[in-house]
Amino acid sequence: MREVAIVAAGMTRFGELWESSLRDLFAEAASEALTSAKADRLDSIYVGNMAAGQFVGQEHLGPLMADHLGMAGVASVRVECACASGGAALRSAFLEVASGASDLVLAAGVEKMTDGADATEVLATAADQELEAYHGITFPGLYAMIARAHAKAHGTTDEDMAWVSVKNHKHGALNPKAQFRREVTVAEVLGSSMVADPLRLLQCSPVSDGAAAVLLCPLDQAKKYTDRPVKIRASVLATSTMALADRKDPSFLDAVKLSADRAYKAADLKPSDVHVVEVHDCFAIAEICCIEALGLVEVGKGRHAAREGLTALGGKIPVNTSGGLKSKGHPVGATGIAQAIEIFEQLRGEAGARQVKNARIGLAQNMGGSGASSVVHILERV
Amino acid sequence: MREVAIVAAGMTRFGELWESSLRDLFAEAASEALTSAKADRLDSIYVGNMAAGQFVGQEHLGPLMADHLGMAGVASVRVECACASGGAALRSAFLEVASGASDLVLAAGVEKMTDGADATEVLATAADQELEAYHGITFPGLYAMIARAHAKAHGTTDEDMAWVSVKNHKHGALNPKAQFRREVTVAEVLGSSMVADPLRLLQCSPVSDGAAAVLLCPLDQAKKYTDRPVKIRASVLATSTMALADRKDPSFLDAVKLSADRAYKAADLKPSDVHVVEVHDCFAIAEICCIEALGLVEVGKGRHAAREGLTALGGKIPVNTSGGLKSKGHPVGATGIAQAIEIFEQLRGEAGARQVKNARIGLAQNMGGSGASSVVHILERV
Repeated sequence: MREVAIVAAGMTRFGELWESSLRDLFAEAASEALTSAKADRLDSIYVGNMAAGQFVGQEHLGPLMADHLGMAGVASVRVECACASGGAALRSAFLEVASGASDLVLAAGVEKMTDGADATEVLATAADQELEAYHGITFPGLYAMIARAHAKAHGTTDEDMAWVSVKNHKHGALNPKAQFRREVTVAEVLGSSMVADPLRLLQCSPVSDGAAAVLLCPLDQAKKYTDRPVKIRASVLATSTMALADRKDPSFLDAVKLSADRAYKAADLKPSDVHVVEVHDCFAIAEICCIEALGLVEVGKGRHAAREGLTALGGKIPVNTSGGLKSKGHPVGATGIAQAIEIFEQLRGEAGARQVKNARIGLAQNMGGSGASSVVHILERV
Repeated sequence: MREVAIVAAGMTRFGELWESSLRDLFAEAASEALTSAKADRLDSIYVGNMAAGQFVGQEHLGPLMADHLGMAGVASVRVECACASGGAALRSAFLEVASGASDLVLAAGVEKMTDGADATEVLATAADQELEAYHGITFPGLYAMIARAHAKAHGTTDEDMAWVSVKNHKHGALNPKAQFRREVTVAEVLGSSMVADPLRLLQCSPVSDGAAAVLLCPLDQAKKYTDRPVKIRASVLATSTMALADRKDPSFLDAVKLSADRAYKAADLKPSDVHVVEVHDCFAIAEICCIEALGLVEVGKGRHAAREGLTALGGKIPVNTSGGLKSKGHPVGATGIAQAIEIFEQLRGEAGARQVKNARIGLAQNMGGSGASSVVHILERV
């Protein structure tokens, strides 16, 4: 396998972007990445997107986006893995470059969620239709059950979860691309309206529009496009049972652990080697479960991490310096690419007020459904 | 890049399969492929599917299908490229094996179209939403415009198109997996109800349920799984403009030509080297356009091929020996894999009454939308 680098990135602001269509969002992010690398051609495009067919009546995003980018002709397909679609698209781009088939591949993610469809209902099609969605449950309910299982197993409290939101909003306030650039307090989180007991509004990521794109090439060609390439040390996707009820322990995200273990092995690294991390905090409890499954903290200790500052900027292992899904926003197909961009910028020293000092190795973890899929990328400054 | 082989295949019958759910169809095809190869593990799965979110309320097919196959844990994602989703999934599996990242990868396609959703409306989301679908056109209308453009440019008649249906039904009558195992006459085709002038019912592929799966590994490991591996000589995807009106010549499918030219180059072969071909005859006119764009006949001569027997079993270059989409059925996400299976079986001498004598090299061409995407695979008996 050839070694692969990320050499450029582009990203829209995340939020309610009513002035931009699905294709416009994609083109904005993709063009920024291409311009940054001074690249005027591509060999291939991967579009991460969960549900544009349901959200805006548009499947077949591969040729649509290539065309809208002025590159009709180029190979271009959509990769879907629910909220991990972005991470899955990045992995496909990585494999294509690693194979030797292509030298310049764009991995982009896009979702347009605020255009009218019932977002909660559309997102529920990422759950098991026969065993879960058909019976009326949606994702706030599924993650509420994970939160209750975690509380039962480890004593996790509503306040523990509130601290995750407080930390991520503090980070997001520093991110010009974030949907919610404001801090929140523990009291505000615990006083916000109940969505699915015990999860409150400010413990849930929002409904968002947005796009993000990264450009990949073989590491030995990276200097053509940038003087600060970032190497992909590992790109791994793992799955678990689709239905939450089929897991041995609903408080533990086994696909996250599996994807992380395989990624650490592929990169020949351990959790303590990582300097900055993005995880999939679609709900506050998800961040707690993810940092445990990634081995960043002991299982059962995740609840203390945000409160004690361990995962805050300036802490031992900063997590979700971008603001995470909670504050930055969560246009589902774009999220996995946006996470990789945060790590890319951190490793290049371009994260501004959010910069983690001397970050050399970073990890991005993107998740689908209630944890039925998880993608881990480990990146390194070279 | 490593050389890659297909070592096993599995496929459901195509048709109105009301007794089987989406996941059941997938598992039936995938299990048949795994059993045939005596493989009890996989490194990775690609699921080709166009629109299960819209058809049956189910996205996130990667982990769902891995789980339902008893393989939760394995990497598994969905690839979508409208009606070329199966071909695109096969290409992704090819790239993953070629890269060296994985040694045993399943590429499967599945679609469940007869469960209640308006199939024509769902399929229209593969067209350009803003420039085409929004204004009310659906695929029969788009292909009717292609047929009219072809008639204007080359004199193609309704009877020329009827002969494509007659030939493909004759082939499909010999295929135990086909949805319509009966022959039709030119008079029946021309007497069938008008769908979108000039296209009549018997010039349109049907709405179908079905699944198909193939198993890929490095060529140098193929003998572990079969004594008759089939090598993938080329795996190429190309795109064109999304909207038909943006093409210079609507009667010529330029993405098909581009994908074919790149595939011939990658395989170091020319059209006359190919012994058996499957093309994407979603409408009768599409087969005529495809054999022209693939270089099997001169541009403008495609209209005579079926009538003169050139593309029939026993002809110079048999096309759609499986019955094609018209007679075999067209569960859209499964079609690209089913085409590859027909070529796989032809090259292994397993095509029964449809066998093309001494077929050593075959080509499968799968198309999305009105030709905005096209995937070409060239396979060779080794």
